[in-house]
Amino acid sequence: MTYCVGIKLDRGLAFMSDTRTNAGIDSISTFRKMFTWSNPGERVIVLLTAGNLATTQAVVSLLDERSKAPSERMPSLLETPSMFQTARVVGNLVKEVISGSTPNGQSQDAFGASFILGGQIKGSEPRLFMIYPEGNFIEAGGDTPFFQVGETKYGKPILIRAYDPRMSFEETAKLLMVSFDSTVKSNLSVGMPLDMLFYERDSYRIGYQKRITGDDPYFRTISDGWSNALRNAFGSLPDFEMS
Amino acid sequence: MTYCVGIKLDRGLAFMSDTRTNAGIDSISTFRKMFTWSNPGERVIVLLTAGNLATTQAVVSLLDERSKAPSERMPSLLETPSMFQTARVVGNLVKEVISGSTPNGQSQDAFGASFILGGQIKGSEPRLFMIYPEGNFIEAGGDTPFFQVGETKYGKPILIRAYDPRMSFEETAKLLMVSFDSTVKSNLSVGMPLDMLFYERDSYRIGYQKRITGDDPYFRTISDGWSNALRNAFGSLPDFEMS
Repeated sequence: MTYCVGIKLDRGLAFMSDTRTNAGIDSISTFRKMFTWSNPGERVIVLLTAGNLATTQAVVSLLDERSKAPSERMPSLLETPSMFQTARVVGNLVKEVISGSTPNGQSQDAFGASFILGGQIKGSEPRLFMIYPEGNFIEAGGDTPFFQVGETKYGKPILIRAYDPRMSFEETAKLLMVSFDSTVKSNLSVGMPLDMLFYERDSYRIGYQKRITGDDPYFRTISDGWSNALRNAFGSLPDFEMS
Repeated sequence: MTYCVGIKLDRGLAFMSDTRTNAGIDSISTFRKMFTWSNPGERVIVLLTAGNLATTQAVVSLLDERSKAPSERMPSLLETPSMFQTARVVGNLVKEVISGSTPNGQSQDAFGASFILGGQIKGSEPRLFMIYPEGNFIEAGGDTPFFQVGETKYGKPILIRAYDPRMSFEETAKLLMVSFDSTVKSNLSVGMPLDMLFYERDSYRIGYQKRITGDDPYFRTISDGWSNALRNAFGSLPDFEMS
Protein backbone atom coordinates (compact mmCIF):
# COMPACT_ATOMS: atom_id res chain seq x y z
CA MET A 1 0.00 0.00 0.00
CA THR A 2 0.95 3.66 -0.08
CA TYR A 3 -0.42 6.95 1.15
CA CYS A 4 -0.09 10.18 -0.84
CA VAL A 5 -1.94 13.47 -0.49
CA GLY A 6 -2.07 16.56 -2.72
CA ILE A 7 -3.81 19.68 -1.41
CA LYS A 8 -4.86 22.88 -3.13
CA LEU A 9 -4.48 26.03 -1.03
CA ASP A 10 -4.91 29.73 -1.68
CA ARG A 11 -1.14 29.99 -1.24
CA GLY A 12 -0.33 27.18 -3.68
CA LEU A 13 -0.06 23.40 -3.54
CA ALA A 14 1.12 20.99 -0.83
CA PHE A 15 2.17 17.38 -1.30
CA MET A 16 3.12 14.51 0.97
CA SER A 17 3.92 10.87 0.23
CA ASP A 18 5.19 7.90 2.19
CA THR A 19 8.00 5.67 0.91
CA ARG A 20 7.06 2.10 1.76
CA THR A 21 6.47 -0.50 -0.92
CA ASN A 22 5.73 -4.12 -0.31
CA ALA A 23 5.36 -7.31 -2.25
CA GLY A 24 3.80 -9.28 0.57
CA ILE A 25 4.30 -8.41 4.23
CA ASP A 26 7.68 -10.18 4.22
CA SER A 27 9.10 -8.10 1.37
CA ILE A 28 9.29 -4.43 2.26
CA SER A 29 11.38 -1.72 0.61
CA THR A 30 11.75 2.05 0.57
CA PHE A 31 11.11 3.89 -2.69
CA ARG A 32 10.48 7.55 -3.35
CA LYS A 33 6.94 8.18 -4.62
CA MET A 34 7.29 11.92 -5.24
CA PHE A 35 8.75 13.15 -8.53
CA THR A 36 9.25 16.68 -9.86
CA TRP A 37 9.96 18.35 -13.18
CA SER A 38 10.59 22.03 -13.45
CA ASN A 39 11.70 24.79 -15.73
CA PRO A 40 12.39 27.49 -13.11
CA GLY A 41 10.49 30.66 -13.85
CA GLU A 42 8.10 28.89 -16.24
CA ARG A 43 6.68 25.70 -14.77
CA VAL A 44 6.71 23.23 -11.89
CA ILE A 45 5.16 19.75 -12.11
CA VAL A 46 4.85 17.33 -9.18
CA LEU A 47 3.75 13.69 -9.46
CA LEU A 48 2.83 11.34 -6.59
CA THR A 49 2.51 7.63 -7.36
CA ALA A 50 0.59 4.72 -5.84
CA GLY A 51 0.12 1.15 -7.00
CA ASN A 52 2.21 -1.42 -8.82
CA LEU A 53 5.85 -0.31 -8.52
CA ALA A 54 6.86 -1.64 -11.94
CA THR A 55 4.03 0.39 -13.48
CA THR A 56 4.80 3.62 -11.62
CA GLN A 57 8.55 3.34 -12.29
CA ALA A 58 7.92 2.72 -15.99
CA VAL A 59 5.62 5.74 -16.17
CA VAL A 60 8.15 8.00 -14.43
CA SER A 61 11.02 6.72 -16.60
CA LEU A 62 9.02 7.32 -19.77
CA LEU A 63 8.09 10.80 -18.55
CA ASP A 64 11.80 11.42 -18.05
CA GLU A 65 12.34 10.07 -21.58
CA ARG A 66 14.88 7.66 -20.20
CA SER A 67 14.22 5.50 -23.25
CA LYS A 68 16.21 8.05 -25.28
CA ALA A 69 19.95 8.70 -25.24
CA PRO A 70 20.79 11.19 -22.47
CA SER A 71 21.74 13.90 -24.99
CA GLU A 72 18.34 13.74 -26.68
CA ARG A 73 16.28 13.87 -23.51
CA MET A 74 13.90 16.78 -23.22
CA PRO A 75 10.97 15.47 -21.22
CA SER A 76 7.72 16.33 -22.95
CA LEU A 77 6.49 17.34 -19.51
CA LEU A 78 8.54 20.51 -19.99
CA GLU A 79 6.77 21.25 -23.29
CA THR A 80 3.07 20.78 -22.60
CA PRO A 81 1.08 24.00 -23.09
CA SER A 82 -1.12 23.50 -20.00
CA MET A 83 -1.55 21.38 -16.86
CA PHE A 84 -4.58 19.79 -18.52
CA GLN A 85 -2.41 18.63 -21.43
CA THR A 86 0.20 17.46 -18.92
CA ALA A 87 -2.44 15.30 -17.24
CA ARG A 88 -3.36 13.86 -20.64
CA VAL A 89 0.26 12.99 -21.38
CA VAL A 90 0.61 11.22 -18.03
CA GLY A 91 -2.81 9.54 -18.37
CA ASN A 92 -2.03 8.17 -21.82
CA LEU A 93 1.30 6.81 -20.63
CA VAL A 94 -0.34 5.16 -17.62
CA LYS A 95 -2.91 3.45 -19.83
CA GLU A 96 -0.21 2.33 -22.27
CA VAL A 97 2.11 0.92 -19.58
CA ILE A 98 -0.69 -0.92 -17.78
CA SER A 99 -2.17 -2.48 -20.91
CA GLY A 100 1.34 -3.41 -22.09
CA SER A 101 1.93 -5.32 -18.84
CA THR A 102 -1.35 -7.20 -18.87
CA PRO A 103 -1.61 -10.56 -20.66
CA ASN A 104 -4.40 -10.50 -23.26
CA GLY A 105 -7.88 -10.83 -21.88
CA GLN A 106 -6.78 -10.76 -18.26
CA SER A 107 -7.75 -8.26 -15.57
CA GLN A 108 -5.47 -5.23 -15.32
CA ASP A 109 -5.95 -4.88 -11.56
CA ALA A 110 -2.59 -6.38 -10.60
CA PHE A 111 -0.73 -3.80 -12.68
CA GLY A 112 -2.88 -0.84 -11.65
CA ALA A 113 -1.56 2.49 -10.41
CA SER A 114 -3.01 5.88 -9.49
CA PHE A 115 -1.34 9.27 -9.53
CA ILE A 116 -1.73 12.75 -8.10
CA LEU A 117 -0.44 15.41 -10.48
CA GLY A 118 -0.09 19.05 -9.53
CA GLY A 119 1.73 22.13 -10.65
CA GLN A 120 1.58 25.41 -12.46
CA ILE A 121 2.57 26.56 -15.95
CA LYS A 122 3.08 30.24 -16.60
CA GLY A 123 -0.09 31.98 -17.69
CA SER A 124 -2.51 29.80 -15.74
CA GLU A 125 -3.48 28.90 -12.18
CA PRO A 126 -1.94 26.12 -10.08
CA ARG A 127 -3.91 22.94 -10.77
CA LEU A 128 -4.25 19.54 -9.13
CA PHE A 129 -5.39 16.28 -10.79
CA MET A 130 -5.97 12.67 -9.86
CA ILE A 131 -5.15 10.21 -12.65
CA TYR A 132 -6.75 6.75 -12.69
CA PRO A 133 -5.27 3.47 -13.96
CA GLU A 134 -7.56 3.79 -17.00
CA GLY A 135 -5.71 6.98 -17.94
CA ASN A 136 -8.61 9.37 -17.37
CA PHE A 137 -8.47 11.98 -14.62
CA ILE A 138 -10.36 14.47 -12.46
CA GLU A 139 -9.38 17.93 -11.23
CA ALA A 140 -9.59 19.30 -7.69
CA GLY A 141 -11.97 22.22 -7.22
CA GLY A 142 -13.44 24.24 -4.38
CA ASP A 143 -15.68 21.39 -3.19
CA THR A 144 -12.94 18.75 -3.32
CA PRO A 145 -9.72 20.63 -2.67
CA PHE A 146 -7.51 17.60 -2.01
CA PHE A 147 -6.82 14.14 -3.39
CA GLN A 148 -5.58 11.03 -1.62
CA VAL A 149 -4.32 7.82 -3.18
CA GLY A 150 -3.50 4.48 -1.55
CA GLU A 151 -4.64 3.85 2.04
CA THR A 152 -6.98 6.85 2.24
CA LYS A 153 -9.44 6.03 5.01
CA TYR A 154 -7.57 6.45 8.31
CA GLY A 155 -6.21 9.89 7.42
CA LYS A 156 -9.32 11.34 5.79
CA PRO A 157 -11.49 12.47 8.75
CA ILE A 158 -8.93 15.02 9.97
CA LEU A 159 -8.32 16.33 6.44
CA ILE A 160 -12.06 16.91 6.00
CA ARG A 161 -12.44 18.60 9.35
CA ALA A 162 -9.33 20.74 9.63
CA TYR A 163 -8.69 21.77 6.00
CA ASP A 164 -9.08 25.45 5.25
CA PRO A 165 -7.98 26.92 1.89
CA ARG A 166 -6.49 29.91 3.71
CA MET A 167 -4.08 27.75 5.72
CA SER A 168 -0.39 28.61 5.79
CA PHE A 169 2.14 26.01 4.65
CA GLU A 170 3.19 25.64 8.31
CA GLU A 171 -0.36 24.66 9.33
CA THR A 172 -0.70 22.46 6.26
CA ALA A 173 2.47 20.59 7.25
CA LYS A 174 0.88 19.95 10.64
CA LEU A 175 -2.36 18.74 9.02
CA LEU A 176 -0.49 16.41 6.67
CA MET A 177 1.59 14.99 9.50
CA VAL A 178 -1.48 14.25 11.62
CA SER A 179 -3.15 12.56 8.66
CA PHE A 180 -0.02 10.51 7.87
CA ASP A 181 0.58 9.65 11.53
CA SER A 182 -2.94 8.16 11.83
CA THR A 183 -2.33 6.13 8.67
CA VAL A 184 1.16 4.91 9.56
CA LYS A 185 -0.12 3.86 13.01
CA SER A 186 -2.99 1.83 11.48
CA ASN A 187 -1.55 0.25 8.33
CA LEU A 188 1.87 -1.45 8.36
CA SER A 189 2.16 -1.07 4.59
CA VAL A 190 2.41 2.73 4.90
CA GLY A 191 5.74 3.77 6.40
CA MET A 192 8.30 6.43 7.17
CA PRO A 193 10.17 8.40 5.94
CA LEU A 194 7.75 10.89 4.38
CA ASP A 195 8.46 13.31 1.53
CA MET A 196 6.91 16.78 1.80
CA LEU A 197 6.85 19.53 -0.81
CA PHE A 198 5.24 22.99 -0.95
CA TYR A 199 4.72 24.90 -4.15
CA GLU A 200 4.02 28.61 -3.74
CA ARG A 201 1.60 30.04 -6.27
CA ASP A 202 3.22 32.04 -9.11
CA SER A 203 6.74 31.18 -7.89
CA TYR A 204 7.38 28.73 -10.78
CA ARG A 205 10.05 27.02 -8.76
CA ILE A 206 10.03 24.02 -6.43
CA GLY A 207 9.57 25.48 -2.98
CA TYR A 208 10.25 23.93 0.39
CA GLN A 209 11.08 20.24 0.24
CA LYS A 210 11.92 17.94 3.13
CA ARG A 211 12.27 14.25 3.88
CA ILE A 212 10.79 13.53 7.31
CA THR A 213 12.29 10.55 9.09
CA GLY A 214 10.66 8.59 11.88
CA ASP A 215 12.83 10.32 14.48
CA ASP A 216 12.18 13.86 13.18
CA PRO A 217 11.59 15.91 16.36
CA TYR A 218 8.58 17.79 14.96
CA PHE A 219 6.98 14.60 13.68
CA ARG A 220 7.46 13.01 17.12
CA THR A 221 5.86 16.07 18.76
CA ILE A 222 2.85 15.78 16.47
CA SER A 223 2.57 12.02 16.79
CA ASP A 224 2.69 12.02 20.60
CA GLY A 225 0.77 15.27 20.93
CA TRP A 226 -2.06 14.14 18.69
CA SER A 227 -2.80 11.09 20.84
CA ASN A 228 -3.06 13.32 23.91
CA ALA A 229 -5.01 16.00 22.06
CA LEU A 230 -7.50 13.40 20.82
CA ARG A 231 -7.97 11.98 24.31
CA ASN A 232 -8.49 15.50 25.68
CA ALA A 233 -10.95 16.29 22.89
CA PHE A 234 -12.82 13.10 23.74
CA GLY A 235 -12.81 13.96 27.43
CA SER A 236 -14.24 17.40 26.69
CA LEU A 237 -17.49 15.94 25.34
CA PRO A 238 -20.32 15.19 27.79
CA ASP A 239 -20.91 11.54 28.77
CA PHE A 240 -24.07 9.74 27.70
CA GLU A 241 -26.89 9.65 30.24
CA MET A 242 -28.83 6.42 30.51
CA SER A 243 -32.54 7.14 30.78
CA MET B 1 -21.58 -2.11 4.08
CA THR B 2 -22.21 -2.13 7.80
CA TYR B 3 -20.47 -1.06 10.96
CA CYS B 4 -20.70 -3.04 14.20
CA VAL B 5 -18.54 -2.90 17.33
CA GLY B 6 -18.36 -5.16 20.38
CA ILE B 7 -16.25 -4.06 23.36
CA LYS B 8 -15.09 -5.90 26.46
CA LEU B 9 -15.00 -3.80 29.63
CA ASP B 10 -14.33 -4.52 33.27
CA ARG B 11 -18.00 -3.74 33.86
CA GLY B 12 -19.27 -6.06 31.14
CA LEU B 13 -19.85 -5.86 27.39
CA ALA B 14 -20.97 -3.03 25.10
CA PHE B 15 -22.35 -3.37 21.58
CA MET B 16 -23.33 -0.99 18.81
CA SER B 17 -24.53 -1.61 15.25
CA ASP B 18 -25.85 0.49 12.40
CA THR B 19 -28.97 -0.51 10.43
CA ARG B 20 -28.24 0.28 6.79
CA THR B 21 -28.15 -2.42 4.15
CA ASN B 22 -27.67 -1.84 0.48
CA ALA B 23 -27.78 -3.79 -2.76
CA GLY B 24 -26.14 -1.10 -4.85
CA ILE B 25 -26.22 2.55 -3.92
CA ASP B 26 -29.73 2.90 -5.37
CA SER B 27 -31.23 0.19 -3.19
CA ILE B 28 -30.98 1.05 0.49
CA SER B 29 -32.98 -0.42 3.36
CA THR B 30 -33.03 -0.46 7.14
CA PHE B 31 -32.52 -3.78 8.92
CA ARG B 32 -31.65 -4.54 12.50
CA LYS B 33 -28.19 -6.13 12.83
CA MET B 34 -28.27 -6.75 16.59
CA PHE B 35 -29.92 -9.91 17.93
CA THR B 36 -30.24 -11.22 21.47
CA TRP B 37 -31.12 -14.47 23.18
CA SER B 38 -31.45 -14.71 26.93
CA ASN B 39 -32.54 -16.91 29.76
CA PRO B 40 -32.75 -14.26 32.50
CA GLY B 41 -30.68 -15.22 35.54
CA GLU B 42 -28.69 -17.80 33.56
CA ARG B 43 -27.40 -16.43 30.24
CA VAL B 44 -27.37 -13.54 27.79
CA ILE B 45 -26.15 -13.86 24.19
CA VAL B 46 -25.76 -10.97 21.74
CA LEU B 47 -25.01 -11.31 18.02
CA LEU B 48 -24.04 -8.50 15.61
CA THR B 49 -24.11 -9.27 11.90
CA ALA B 50 -22.30 -7.89 8.82
CA GLY B 51 -22.24 -9.05 5.23
CA ASN B 52 -24.70 -10.65 2.83
CA LEU B 53 -28.19 -10.03 4.26
CA ALA B 54 -29.64 -13.33 3.00
CA THR B 55 -26.79 -15.14 4.77
CA THR B 56 -27.11 -13.25 8.07
CA GLN B 57 -30.92 -13.57 8.12
CA ALA B 58 -30.70 -17.30 7.42
CA VAL B 59 -28.17 -17.72 10.24
CA VAL B 60 -30.33 -15.79 12.72
CA SER B 61 -33.48 -17.66 11.68
CA LEU B 62 -31.75 -21.00 12.10
CA LEU B 63 -30.41 -19.92 15.50
CA ASP B 64 -34.01 -19.09 16.43
CA GLU B 65 -34.96 -22.52 15.12
CA ARG B 66 -37.59 -20.87 12.96
CA SER B 67 -37.44 -23.93 10.74
CA LYS B 68 -39.38 -25.77 13.47
CA ALA B 69 -43.03 -25.39 14.45
CA PRO B 70 -43.35 -22.58 17.04
CA SER B 71 -44.30 -25.00 19.82
CA GLU B 72 -41.13 -27.03 19.33
CA ARG B 73 -38.74 -24.08 19.28
CA MET B 74 -36.11 -24.07 21.96
CA PRO B 75 -33.11 -22.36 20.41
CA SER B 76 -30.00 -24.40 20.97
CA LEU B 77 -28.36 -21.09 21.90
CA LEU B 78 -30.18 -21.42 25.23
CA GLU B 79 -28.68 -24.88 25.80
CA THR B 80 -24.99 -24.52 25.01
CA PRO B 81 -22.78 -25.22 28.03
CA SER B 82 -20.35 -22.35 27.36
CA MET B 83 -19.81 -19.25 25.23
CA PHE B 84 -17.08 -21.16 23.37
CA GLN B 85 -19.61 -23.85 22.40
CA THR B 86 -22.06 -21.08 21.45
CA ALA B 87 -19.46 -19.62 19.08
CA ARG B 88 -18.98 -23.10 17.57
CA VAL B 89 -22.74 -23.48 16.99
CA VAL B 90 -22.91 -20.10 15.27
CA GLY B 91 -19.69 -20.71 13.30
CA ASN B 92 -20.89 -24.08 12.00
CA LEU B 93 -24.20 -22.56 10.93
CA VAL B 94 -22.43 -19.71 9.15
CA LYS B 95 -20.24 -22.13 7.23
CA GLU B 96 -23.24 -24.29 6.34
CA VAL B 97 -25.39 -21.38 5.13
CA ILE B 98 -22.60 -19.84 3.05
CA SER B 99 -21.54 -23.06 1.39
CA GLY B 100 -25.21 -23.92 0.74
CA SER B 101 -25.66 -20.60 -1.12
CA THR B 102 -22.56 -20.91 -3.26
CA PRO B 103 -22.72 -22.68 -6.64
CA ASN B 104 -20.17 -25.53 -6.82
CA GLY B 105 -16.62 -24.44 -7.41
CA GLN B 106 -17.39 -20.72 -7.26
CA SER B 107 -16.00 -18.17 -4.82
CA GLN B 108 -17.98 -17.77 -1.61
CA ASP B 109 -17.15 -14.07 -1.30
CA ALA B 110 -20.52 -12.79 -2.52
CA PHE B 111 -22.35 -14.73 0.21
CA GLY B 112 -19.86 -13.92 2.97
CA ALA B 113 -20.77 -12.62 6.40
CA SER B 114 -18.96 -11.87 9.66
CA PHE B 115 -20.33 -11.81 13.20
CA ILE B 116 -19.52 -10.45 16.62
CA LEU B 117 -20.80 -12.72 19.37
CA GLY B 118 -20.75 -11.77 23.03
CA GLY B 119 -22.40 -12.77 26.24
CA GLN B 120 -22.15 -14.61 29.52
CA ILE B 121 -23.35 -17.99 30.74
CA LYS B 122 -23.63 -18.64 34.47
CA GLY B 123 -20.44 -20.04 35.93
CA SER B 124 -18.05 -18.30 33.55
CA GLU B 125 -16.80 -14.85 32.56
CA PRO B 126 -18.36 -12.57 29.93
CA ARG B 127 -16.75 -13.41 26.58
CA LEU B 128 -16.54 -11.78 23.17
CA PHE B 129 -15.85 -13.50 19.82
CA MET B 130 -15.48 -12.60 16.17
CA ILE B 131 -16.77 -15.26 13.78
CA TYR B 132 -15.48 -15.42 10.20
CA PRO B 133 -17.35 -16.52 7.05
CA GLU B 134 -15.33 -19.76 7.17
CA GLY B 135 -16.98 -20.57 10.51
CA ASN B 136 -13.85 -20.28 12.64
CA PHE B 137 -13.51 -17.57 15.27
CA ILE B 138 -11.22 -15.61 17.59
CA GLU B 139 -11.79 -14.33 21.11
CA ALA B 140 -11.13 -10.86 22.48
CA GLY B 141 -8.47 -10.61 25.19
CA GLY B 142 -6.58 -7.95 27.07
CA ASP B 143 -4.50 -6.95 24.03
CA THR B 144 -7.45 -6.80 21.64
CA PRO B 145 -10.42 -5.87 23.79
CA PHE B 146 -12.81 -4.98 20.97
CA PHE B 147 -13.93 -6.26 17.58
CA GLN B 148 -15.25 -4.34 14.60
CA VAL B 149 -16.93 -5.76 11.49
CA GLY B 150 -17.86 -4.01 8.23
CA GLU B 151 -16.46 -0.55 7.51
CA THR B 152 -13.87 -0.60 10.28
CA LYS B 153 -11.24 1.95 9.26
CA TYR B 154 -12.74 5.40 9.85
CA GLY B 155 -13.88 4.61 13.39
CA LYS B 156 -10.83 2.68 14.57
CA PRO B 157 -8.29 5.40 15.51
CA ILE B 158 -10.49 6.84 18.28
CA LEU B 159 -11.33 3.36 19.63
CA ILE B 160 -7.62 2.56 19.88
CA ARG B 161 -6.76 5.85 21.54
CA ALA B 162 -9.66 6.40 23.94
CA TYR B 163 -10.53 2.85 25.02
CA ASP B 164 -9.91 2.02 28.65
CA PRO B 165 -11.18 -1.23 30.21
CA ARG B 166 -12.23 0.70 33.33
CA MET B 167 -14.62 2.95 31.39
CA SER B 168 -18.19 3.35 32.56
CA PHE B 169 -21.03 2.47 30.19
CA GLU B 170 -21.77 6.20 29.90
CA GLU B 171 -18.23 6.90 28.63
CA THR B 172 -18.37 3.84 26.40
CA ALA B 173 -21.59 5.14 24.81
CA LYS B 174 -19.74 8.37 24.05
CA LEU B 175 -16.80 6.48 22.56
CA LEU B 176 -19.07 4.32 20.40
CA MET B 177 -20.98 7.35 19.18
CA VAL B 178 -17.81 9.20 18.17
CA SER B 179 -16.56 6.09 16.33
CA PHE B 180 -19.92 5.62 14.56
CA ASP B 181 -20.26 9.33 13.76
CA SER B 182 -16.87 9.33 11.96
CA THR B 183 -17.93 6.26 9.99
CA VAL B 184 -21.43 7.48 9.09
CA LYS B 185 -19.94 10.79 7.91
CA SER B 186 -17.41 9.03 5.66
CA ASN B 187 -19.26 6.05 4.20
CA LEU B 188 -22.80 6.40 2.82
CA SER B 189 -23.40 2.68 3.21
CA VAL B 190 -23.27 2.98 7.02
CA GLY B 191 -26.36 4.75 8.34
CA MET B 192 -28.59 5.74 11.22
CA PRO B 193 -30.40 4.68 13.36
CA LEU B 194 -27.92 2.87 15.62
CA ASP B 195 -28.67 0.10 18.08
CA MET B 196 -26.82 0.18 21.40
CA LEU B 197 -26.76 -2.47 24.14
CA PHE B 198 -24.91 -2.78 27.44
CA TYR B 199 -24.54 -6.04 29.31
CA GLU B 200 -23.49 -5.72 32.93
CA ARG B 201 -21.19 -8.49 34.15
CA ASP B 202 -22.91 -11.19 36.28
CA SER B 203 -26.34 -9.64 35.72
CA TYR B 204 -27.45 -12.42 33.34
CA ARG B 205 -30.06 -10.14 31.84
CA ILE B 206 -30.07 -7.79 28.87
CA GLY B 207 -29.17 -4.42 30.29
CA TYR B 208 -29.64 -1.00 28.82
CA GLN B 209 -30.81 -1.04 25.21
CA LYS B 210 -31.56 1.95 22.99
CA ARG B 211 -32.16 2.76 19.34
CA ILE B 212 -30.44 6.04 18.51
CA THR B 213 -32.03 7.98 15.68
CA GLY B 214 -30.32 10.65 13.58
CA ASP B 215 -32.09 13.41 15.50
CA ASP B 216 -31.25 12.02 18.96
CA PRO B 217 -30.19 15.11 20.98
CA TYR B 218 -27.19 13.40 22.59
CA PHE B 219 -25.98 12.03 19.26
CA ARG B 220 -26.29 15.52 17.74
CA THR B 221 -24.27 16.96 20.64
CA ILE B 222 -21.52 14.41 20.08
CA SER B 223 -21.54 14.74 16.29
CA ASP B 224 -21.31 18.54 16.32
CA GLY B 225 -19.09 18.66 19.40
CA TRP B 226 -16.58 16.16 18.00
CA SER B 227 -15.93 18.27 14.91
CA ASN B 228 -15.19 21.26 17.10
CA ALA B 229 -13.19 19.23 19.60
CA LEU B 230 -11.06 17.79 16.78
CA ARG B 231 -10.41 21.23 15.33
CA ASN B 232 -9.45 22.53 18.78
CA ALA B 233 -7.19 19.52 19.33
CA PHE B 234 -5.56 20.21 15.99
CA GLY B 235 -5.17 23.89 16.85
CA SER B 236 -3.50 23.00 20.16
CA LEU B 237 -0.53 21.36 18.40
CA PRO B 238 2.41 23.56 17.37
CA ASP B 239 2.73 24.51 13.68
CA PHE B 240 5.60 23.20 11.61
CA GLU B 241 8.62 25.47 11.26
CA MET B 242 10.28 25.61 7.86
CA SER B 243 14.03 25.50 8.23
